Amino acid sequence: MLAAVIHDARDVRAEERPDPTILTPGDAVVRVVAACVCGSDLWPYRGVTPVKRPRPIGHELVGVVEELGSEVTSAQVGDFVILPFTMSCGVCQSCRAGYPAACDLVTGFGGKDRDGHPVDGAQGERVRIPLAQHSLFPVGRSEAEIEAAGLVPHLLALADVMSTGYHAAFSAGVSAGDTVVVVGDGAVGLCGVIGARLLGAGRIVAMSRHDDRAALAREFGATDVVAERGADGVAAVRDLLGPSTGSGGTGDLADAALECVGTKESMDTALDVVRGGGRVGFVGVPHLAPELSVRRLFDRNITIGGGMASARHYMETLLPEVLSGTIAPGKVFDLELPLADVAEAYAAMDERRATKVLLRP
Amino acid sequence: MLAAVIHDARDVRAEERPDPTILTPGDAVVRVVAACVCGSDLWPYRGVTPVKRPRPIGHELVGVVEELGSEVTSAQVGDFVILPFTMSCGVCQSCRAGYPAACDLVTGFGGKDRDGHPVDGAQGERVRIPLAQHSLFPVGRSEAEIEAAGLVPHLLALADVMSTGYHAAFSAGVSAGDTVVVVGDGAVGLCGVIGARLLGAGRIVAMSRHDDRAALAREFGATDVVAERGADGVAAVRDLLGPSTGSGGTGDLADAALECVGTKESMDTALDVVRGGGRVGFVGVPHLAPELSVRRLFDRNITIGGGMASARHYMETLLPEVLSGTIAPGKVFDLELPLADVAEAYAAMDERRATKVLLRP
Repeated sequence: MLAAVIHDARDVRAEERPDPTILTPGDAVVRVVAACVCGSDLWPYRGVTPVKRPRPIGHELVGVVEELGSEVTSAQVGDFVILPFTMSCGVCQSCRAGYPAACDLVTGFGGKDRDGHPVDGAQGERVRIPLAQHSLFPVGRSEAEIEAAGLVPHLLALADVMSTGYHAAFSAGVSAGDTVVVVGDGAVGLCGVIGARLLGAGRIVAMSRHDDRAALAREFGATDVVAERGADGVAAVRDLLGPSTGSGGTGDLADAALECVGTKESMDTALDVVRGGGRVGFVGVPHLAPELSVRRLFDRNITIGGGMASARHYMETLLPEVLSGTIAPGKVFDLELPLADVAEAYAAMDERRATKVLLRP
Repeated sequence: MLAAVIHDARDVRAEERPDPTILTPGDAVVRVVAACVCGSDLWPYRGVTPVKRPRPIGHELVGVVEELGSEVTSAQVGDFVILPFTMSCGVCQSCRAGYPAACDLVTGFGGKDRDGHPVDGAQGERVRIPLAQHSLFPVGRSEAEIEAAGLVPHLLALADVMSTGYHAAFSAGVSAGDTVVVVGDGAVGLCGVIGARLLGAGRIVAMSRHDDRAALAREFGATDVVAERGADGVAAVRDLLGPSTGSGGTGDLADAALECVGTKESMDTALDVVRGGGRVGFVGVPHLAPELSVRRLFDRNITIGGGMASARHYMETLLPEVLSGTIAPGKVFDLELPLADVAEAYAAMDERRATKVLLRP
């Protein structure tokens, strides 16, 4: 089969690899209908994370079940399924608490499973899925229906980017009437706008300096856009929210902020843009934001939470919203390419010619 | 009047100071009925925080209003009041959001107010209270009634230690049925047990190695006590909570932890003792825990929040619980001394001969 393999920085190739097979009774094999490139795939692509040896890449896919191990009863051959970007057991304490991303047996794509077997990347024609019983998420509609309804991009978004945006809003404790600032206008930030809206935010300020992304943020529910960054961005938010009725004289700040980038600057902005007692949800992989001052949280009573989204858990909330047409997160895909052109997919995202690229095997 | 002044490490004296007077129309003067020594007062006493020049000390008091500035209408002369350990305006965004500890004009005891006037310490016979309109919290009973009912210690606890323990539990998002670990068996940790119980925790594990404090923790609502610390303490919690029904094989962890000490070790324990997706509330002043790894939060999806408690806000919840006898946080006071013996009060707490000392002017 054809699958994407990253060999080194800026060297991703579509190449032939062995077809996956069932290796344990808990496995499934899924034929990939669509996959995509994640902002976090750009870390190794850009050389920020070293690529020690060639490995299959990609962790977002929707597809059709082709084979099932003898212990898997949660789906049937032929089912159209979404895969969360991490596989999980469904029974450990973290899974039961709604945090399968922190599963005791958490297993990612492109590495090895807990039995030591290699796990395929999601950017390929087929993928072996370990921990399939809990990880397969059947949509309940046929492939033909889904394709005819144009649902593929929206369902694919639930595999990671929409779930991650929702996790940012959930982790920031967004609730009815909150004023929320979304830091980052990438695909995750845009989905964070959707997440904040689903959780009832009254006002959503998207920090964006790209007209096309700002327009999509507004379509997704942003009420305001601020183009400035850093301290200027915080000042612009204060101006926007208006002078406080209290004694400070300056403008108000947000109740919550979603940190959807993962750099020190974006984290600083998220922390500075919330009021005393405010909340920050962070989902940007913190490659460049290693340390946080406890004192800084203490002095302003800020709560911070986040991490890898428990996509498998959020799908239960988000799938009905997609099927009813309430949300259309697949609009973050602004380029679709055949899997064979995966190198161009990475280049387009790296050069910001595309927000997020959908790949068709 | 007599008031406590810290001159240097291990040098606190009760000495004569000028009687306070009304300096602005927003002031009040309160006659102190009882004050006390806080764990955070021990930082300068132990020389951890340098004492640059002699200054009045103490930030917890209950008393009776003696004089009111012309703008103060929230209390009357003769009212028995509790003072939160920080004064606040009540109208700025943070105050309106329920976080007066992060007030735009937040003002502490023993320093200067926003007008540059000195503010007395709480360990004295009388105190001028700036921002009195919002900061005075009338109890609604007379001094004689309160003394007769033995309520003074319980009301005094609301000024800081009980509110701070409650804030730890609130910041950890404790909700019905949660399993909660309380790290720290000082007065704040003990009040954290009460806070967790009020918020509906199903199981409360107090980490304590002192028999008397462990006994009080149980009286306050702790269901279990663990004496071990650090990694041994985490292992003991796992043993106590029992093997997971999931796939991990080891025991479960807590849903939430309250960090009530403020050291690196206690923060590490709090972070390690919660499950994936768990929550940490921290109220220990972080003198010794300066930095937190964002990656560590990210990898286990931990939410952390806390800081100075908004005592003024929590009093609205906690006062009825004290008056109804549901909680008795004043039991953390295990020594009562006259103000003149303030040096002995500090020494007793420093040497752990007392958990918390109540001072009577």
